[in-house]
Amino acid sequence: MSLKPGHADPEGEVTARSLRELGYRVRSVKVSKIYRIELEAKSQEEARAHVEEMCWRLLANPVKDDYIIVFER
Amino acid sequence: MSLKPGHADPEGEVTARSLRELGYRVRSVKVSKIYRIELEAKSQEEARAHVEEMCWRLLANPVKDDYIIVFER
Repeated sequence: MSLKPGHADPEGEVTARSLRELGYRVRSVKVSKIYRIELEAKSQEEARAHVEEMCWRLLANPVKDDYIIVFER
Repeated sequence: MSLKPGHADPEGEVTARSLRELGYRVRSVKVSKIYRIELEAKSQEEARAHVEEMCWRLLANPVKDDYIIVFER
């Protein structure tokens, strides 16, 4: 889950500023998040459908968040 | 950046509970973070050394955080 281009990333900006104050030549910092979800499902199709739903119902803000979904068995 | 095994992940636990309340059969949720840092360096070796330093000086908590560093040019 990462911010859509053009959206302010306050955590990244504060981190970049702190790193510059420590003397590092940092151009930018962008922070994104991984939710590693273990779930029960009858098939990979069902799992994918449920995770898509979870994203729009709870995890992602459609105005500012982009996301990709990756599966492991 | 992810939590070391055995460390409580309150954000993941709250997310898992909320997803269960929405009806999903979620076993667990673990949250980790990616810092995408654009920095200036003379070589990949210098960049790696600086990022290692940034981790222990600012980004990671050595008691609870594990991290891996990945480079792109």
